[in-house]
Amino acid sequence: MRMYDIIAKKRDGKELSYEELKFFIDGYCKGTIPDYQASAMLMAMYLKGMSPKETADMTVLMANSGERIDLSPIKGIKVDKHSTGGVGDKVTLIVAPIVAACGVPVAKMSGRGLGHTGGTIDKLESIPGFRTSVSREEFISNVQQIGICIAGQTSNLAPADKKLYALRDVTATVNSIPLIASSIMSKKIASGANKIVLDVKTGSGAFMKTLDESIALSKTMVEIGKRAGIETVAVITDMDIPLGNTIGNALEVKEALNTLKGRGPRDLETISFEIAARMLELAGKGDMEHCREEVRNAVYDGSALKKFAAMVKRQGGESEVVNDENILGKAEFTRDIVSDKSGYIESIKTNLLGTASMVLGAGRETKDSDIDHLAGIVLHRKTGAKVEKGEVIATLHTNNEEKLKEAEALLRDAYVISNWRPDTRSLILAFVNSAGVRKYVDEI
Amino acid sequence: MRMYDIIAKKRDGKELSYEELKFFIDGYCKGTIPDYQASAMLMAMYLKGMSPKETADMTVLMANSGERIDLSPIKGIKVDKHSTGGVGDKVTLIVAPIVAACGVPVAKMSGRGLGHTGGTIDKLESIPGFRTSVSREEFISNVQQIGICIAGQTSNLAPADKKLYALRDVTATVNSIPLIASSIMSKKIASGANKIVLDVKTGSGAFMKTLDESIALSKTMVEIGKRAGIETVAVITDMDIPLGNTIGNALEVKEALNTLKGRGPRDLETISFEIAARMLELAGKGDMEHCREEVRNAVYDGSALKKFAAMVKRQGGESEVVNDENILGKAEFTRDIVSDKSGYIESIKTNLLGTASMVLGAGRETKDSDIDHLAGIVLHRKTGAKVEKGEVIATLHTNNEEKLKEAEALLRDAYVISNWRPDTRSLILAFVNSAGVRKYVDEI
Repeated sequence: MRMYDIIAKKRDGKELSYEELKFFIDGYCKGTIPDYQASAMLMAMYLKGMSPKETADMTVLMANSGERIDLSPIKGIKVDKHSTGGVGDKVTLIVAPIVAACGVPVAKMSGRGLGHTGGTIDKLESIPGFRTSVSREEFISNVQQIGICIAGQTSNLAPADKKLYALRDVTATVNSIPLIASSIMSKKIASGANKIVLDVKTGSGAFMKTLDESIALSKTMVEIGKRAGIETVAVITDMDIPLGNTIGNALEVKEALNTLKGRGPRDLETISFEIAARMLELAGKGDMEHCREEVRNAVYDGSALKKFAAMVKRQGGESEVVNDENILGKAEFTRDIVSDKSGYIESIKTNLLGTASMVLGAGRETKDSDIDHLAGIVLHRKTGAKVEKGEVIATLHTNNEEKLKEAEALLRDAYVISNWRPDTRSLILAFVNSAGVRKYVDEI
Repeated sequence: MRMYDIIAKKRDGKELSYEELKFFIDGYCKGTIPDYQASAMLMAMYLKGMSPKETADMTVLMANSGERIDLSPIKGIKVDKHSTGGVGDKVTLIVAPIVAACGVPVAKMSGRGLGHTGGTIDKLESIPGFRTSVSREEFISNVQQIGICIAGQTSNLAPADKKLYALRDVTATVNSIPLIASSIMSKKIASGANKIVLDVKTGSGAFMKTLDESIALSKTMVEIGKRAGIETVAVITDMDIPLGNTIGNALEVKEALNTLKGRGPRDLETISFEIAARMLELAGKGDMEHCREEVRNAVYDGSALKKFAAMVKRQGGESEVVNDENILGKAEFTRDIVSDKSGYIESIKTNLLGTASMVLGAGRETKDSDIDHLAGIVLHRKTGAKVEKGEVIATLHTNNEEKLKEAEALLRDAYVISNWRPDTRSLILAFVNSAGVRKYVDEI
């Protein structure tokens, strides 16, 4: 078998066999296939597309390129959850304790992040003492004993994906649905869950800008899961405006805790509860109506918050944080941003808010940047709200005073205020499983 | 400007500007753009195509990447000739002295070859003493004084093409009409001629297998020439069977000399005379009828042969070769191949004959292989001929006796003998210039 012939076959739009894809993925990992052949292949895949079988084969090959976590010592159906990423997305922090409180084991590997804020792991590390780096044995035993552990991803999780993603990133081959789907799913499959709920974000603050793109990506990932024997469903949720009212690591932990206390913002609660209910449904806890009820109960009876506290304690953090948010600390500098006119917030350029948050220190520009856990933005008004001139619409938080000016300019650019009251859009836009696609016209 | 954005633009099927192509070609030459970005770009160019403007821009940029030969010290219109390559193609050896004998200066840079035989330069080096490596000054002064010089290409001719071609060769991006056209034309443009006649070979022994492909390639090259201000025409000729009756360096020189004496095989004479006439026409020597007459005269009055002898003498070779072909020598071992049945030669797998010739030592497998100038094949019967069982159809020549067996097997595979007399095909299939395409149904 020669890489040249495999490239030529894909270039001509033909379907690659499992063996051909294996030759490519294994050879690229080992270094016997050079970058320049891999990038020609990726461009051919981008432009000629990939069949469902090819996409699933490549995903499993990437999953098998490194360690595959074995969760079988944990009893029960392990349901993982993944978000395609958005601004202010702290859903995992809410969903994981709820699901665990409902008796479904949560053994979650999570990543750090590039961009507007850190990932789930960075957010948890804003809790003093919290350890996200745990051994494989501790990870398993935590879940066995208290039903939940959220830990940092091993560096050997789907290394083929890591290497290919770095190449796609510099050869303009990122934005391909089969390549995005296989990248995400390879890491999920390697993480060892039996079933997966995907939260596919759509809108100006997300990677997928339109509902149609999000549905296409969701269908591809659901199909990969089916072929790999891992039942997968996708909830497509709105990311035209930031989720909740905070962006930034400690700020988001506070908001997640409030949501677990039943006092969270409505959009964050709606989406988190829906994802949690889908996870319970996949775990066999009953129909969606029943699962939604279970979720609400776990919040209103305090058991989800208690589960969060147990996880924090188990992983070395100050569990008192669930009662006293001052434990998280506060940034040295804050600045209130005041509206310079009256009207309605017609829209928010969510990506600019993400950039402002990064500028303040909440996110990483490069993978070696440090994070300021206390930096970020609190939004007091979001799209659709009526504002008066002089009213505070947002507050910036940072430990680096010099950054306030740049962040304020970005934030002012992000808010579009006019005399038009915009239509509200559904928070949950569609649901995709192997039976098909269901679009929602109104909010659930 | 970022290479990433340029790749993305081509990936999306948009036309690249001159500046963007310059950024790519210059950066790739300098090494600031890595192979993996260049190969992604080449695959995008392969699959999305290139506009005539892009193709011409890229060609000129590649031509400008190294030395551009200045032929202006030579008076008159300098017409170059290029063949896309075939088995037994010794046309340059015949055409160059004819054209020079008709008063049109021939300042020809030529390459060595990979594959079945060497290039024109290797063929000339089978003449004892012949120097193909001449200084730029000698090259110009030879043409000024005797009207002809054929010399080896400088290594600095279109280095961008050399580097890109090596990458295309390992990333399955060779077979793209705009990329092939720009590769060929970049070297021709850098070689300094005012006008160019292309001999585009078509058929089983050529790179282009069909007439339609050859026409498409020709139109693209003619258009590049037009945009670069270098009038270019293409003669599309048959390569379903080898050209002439010899394959191999010294063997081909002998056949070229016979053709210059008016005793060459009809197919070789027909194609060579047509190419020579087109070169005279481009040089302004009159209409094609007149130019064909001039060509025939130069051969029948011996002036073309005399010009060949003058060139050989000038470049240090034994010019007596034109009267005594024994000067070229003879291979130590020969083997006659006898037909094992009676019938018609229905077809010849020309590419297999090429391989047999290489096996015998006439061509290079890698660029560092040595050539046996005396090795090769003489064909006594070609497609369409009637053969009797026991009749000699070909003779193998080599200095490496061990290779005879393998070469014989290849040669036997190459000849298809049956009871069917095949239709004859035109030798000259079409002519392309900036006015359009003319297909020939019958031979001229």
